[in-house]
Amino acid sequence: MPTEHADSNRGVQPPLITFLSDYGHLDEFVGVCHGVIARRCPRARVIDITHSIPRHDVREGGLVLRDALPHMPPGVHLAVVDPAVGALERRAVALRTVREERLLVGPDNGLLMFAAESFGGVAEAVDIGRSPERLEPVSATFHGRDIFAPVAAALAAGATLHVVGEEMAAQSLRRLTLSVAHVAQQTLTAHVLRADNFGNLLLDASPQQIAEAGLRRDAPLWVAVGERRYPGRYASTFSDVPPGELLLYEDALQMAALAVNRGSAAEHLGVGRDAELQVTPA
Amino acid sequence: MPTEHADSNRGVQPPLITFLSDYGHLDEFVGVCHGVIARRCPRARVIDITHSIPRHDVREGGLVLRDALPHMPPGVHLAVVDPAVGALERRAVALRTVREERLLVGPDNGLLMFAAESFGGVAEAVDIGRSPERLEPVSATFHGRDIFAPVAAALAAGATLHVVGEEMAAQSLRRLTLSVAHVAQQTLTAHVLRADNFGNLLLDASPQQIAEAGLRRDAPLWVAVGERRYPGRYASTFSDVPPGELLLYEDALQMAALAVNRGSAAEHLGVGRDAELQVTPA
Amino acid sequence: MPTEHADSNRGVQPPLITFLSDYGHLDEFVGVCHGVIARRCPRARVIDITHSIPRHDVREGGLVLRDALPHMPPGVHLAVVDPAVGALERRAVALRTVREERLLVGPDNGLLMFAAESFGGVAEAVDIGRSPERLEPVSATFHGRDIFAPVAAALAAGATLHVVGEEMAAQSLRRLTLSVAHVAQQTLTAHVLRADNFGNLLLDASPQQIAEAGLRRDAPLWVAVGERRYPGRYASTFSDVPPGELLLYEDALQMAALAVNRGSAAEHLGVGRDAELQVTPA
Repeated sequence: MPTEHADSNRGVQPPLITFLSDYGHLDEFVGVCHGVIARRCPRARVIDITHSIPRHDVREGGLVLRDALPHMPPGVHLAVVDPAVGALERRAVALRTVREERLLVGPDNGLLMFAAESFGGVAEAVDIGRSPERLEPVSATFHGRDIFAPVAAALAAGATLHVVGEEMAAQSLRRLTLSVAHVAQQTLTAHVLRADNFGNLLLDASPQQIAEAGLRRDAPLWVAVGERRYPGRYASTFSDVPPGELLLYEDALQMAALAVNRGSAAEHLGVGRDAELQVTPA
Repeated sequence: MPTEHADSNRGVQPPLITFLSDYGHLDEFVGVCHGVIARRCPRARVIDITHSIPRHDVREGGLVLRDALPHMPPGVHLAVVDPAVGALERRAVALRTVREERLLVGPDNGLLMFAAESFGGVAEAVDIGRSPERLEPVSATFHGRDIFAPVAAALAAGATLHVVGEEMAAQSLRRLTLSVAHVAQQTLTAHVLRADNFGNLLLDASPQQIAEAGLRRDAPLWVAVGERRYPGRYASTFSDVPPGELLLYEDALQMAALAVNRGSAAEHLGVGRDAELQVTPA
Repeated sequence: MPTEHADSNRGVQPPLITFLSDYGHLDEFVGVCHGVIARRCPRARVIDITHSIPRHDVREGGLVLRDALPHMPPGVHLAVVDPAVGALERRAVALRTVREERLLVGPDNGLLMFAAESFGGVAEAVDIGRSPERLEPVSATFHGRDIFAPVAAALAAGATLHVVGEEMAAQSLRRLTLSVAHVAQQTLTAHVLRADNFGNLLLDASPQQIAEAGLRRDAPLWVAVGERRYPGRYASTFSDVPPGELLLYEDALQMAALAVNRGSAAEHLGVGRDAELQVTPA
């Protein structure tokens, strides 16, 4: 980012916490976590990434976190999508990434790991399930309030990982696997990573893989879902094709995506998350 | 909360305002109130507890406020659920609690009183309907913007209650009554205080009352709604029972609650707010 | 606003950015823009006016912006409702208003212009489509993140318009036209500017025009929609009429509006945005 006319008057910056969850906005859960943070670290500034992760969808939360963090200032990154809250075998963790020393706080269910890997992996991890920062009594159902938010706030206030938790082996952290797109014989085989709220389908394929499959910008193509084939076009943006027409494009994350101009690719193709599809030049 | 590794670098804290309402997020009402606050007290920090209180549900708003405030730093607590906005007989008030000297601002319809009572009651109250802090002309429909937000901001900026309103008798403040659970002959008679968005039913019974009724952790029980009886279990958390099974548990507020693991207790029992039910050991 | 007991302890204020969009809260778009702003201008404080503008409804966004800005502290006002994002012919702009020197940032589709006009018009405008502040590579679909948010943050950090964009003629900015109410022969002909989420209909008529049409407070009236006529009353607030009855009133923006007490005027009259209707004394 340019710094020539930068913010010279800034002084000491407040510590930053970003917050992502599946709590939604119908209840007071998010607000209560903000209060808990403000009590422990009044100086902290909190940026809500989103609280609309589909309930209990750990993989979706992990992908959104990974894709959002590069746009967030370095700091403490709190994330809670936690279907196994209260279960003994689910650990609560805080970790530091290799690059940029970002601090991630959340359940040990894979949620944090796509983001951690995109910052060079985990340099250090602690188990915070019995953190001295916990709010007692710890409830069985609201660890966001009782464990994750207070630990994030303590880290923002300057506490070290060793103070808020017990050392654990980074290799023991749970990881999720993702599908992998591949190219063979001018065919790109890709999978739907996410379907957004407009029916756009985000794929696991890169622009390099699109090129390897022989797909050319502005040229027609076929998208196959099982036995069905749909005509489309490799375009730059929605308005490059007529309304109702399917397009392959690079989305805002610079990954392959499918959309229908003024429509829904999910409905058009009749597919959702995890679907496999083949793309070939027409 | 632990303070050993506390936030020593904090300096002067900005004044804090918490904000709860039934305005929802479909309109700009919440944002406009934030702007009004920022104009009057630019230093103030605002924490949104929730704006998803069901429209005009004063009791629900009052219960959420009561349960959230212990997690909020002391400060000014603005709350607006105001079905009688604009009516002459509805007063607008600001008050100070006995414990922690919290300042509560909102309509005089009972909304503030559960919270006030949980902080030892009202030490002092003023009528702010004709506050010099009002934004003129005061609209008939948006007192959040024209009266409550500017008064809350003035208090955050250091104004006293006497400056923002006219003294009134704390005894004249309107109060709402709540149902009371009771135990007799190994039967806990309780009522639904709130039904949350997952169909969990929050009751007016305490863990002590559960114990008095002879209910034991991990033991089976009956829940009766009128003539109907449903089997269940007194458990610690959802995953202690199979999917679809009813459980009685202590919720995150340490009160009795009913849930169905991966389901809705409200649908399962066919009841909602204010329903009376009996719980007995099986 | 009164300043007698003003905020004397405030010190240097952080720069302020307000943010309005049609991004909604189901995705992480708003959170990502907050992150981008915090990276470029960590001191900036952001007030979200609303993100629930109906998708792609530029006029609605422009009206909400115009009506909200007087309640916002002067600063940078970021607005994104951008159906033509990525299209070459749609310019991205930043401008300074004549009164209060407010800085508005958004697409050049009319969105900013109602607000600009209410602050005395445009003193200076720049094209920011190729701003040095852009995040590269600029996506085709998310200019909020890649152009508008970073430019708004740079302005908040003290950059001048000339630094963030290329000078352009203010007269070339796109404007939207609005319907105009008029009075003739004791008939007020007005149009629905907005229908809010409760079915209240905001009209383009002023209290002066209501008076010119001979309508008197607390007196009965007729509302005609084409051939249909509906009885109503000119009242101060909802509760002045019985439930289910139609009323004409001055809304919180001091403009004429129609409502049904505890009901929906939109449903009652069977009309929505842009509908024309006649109001006459009964």
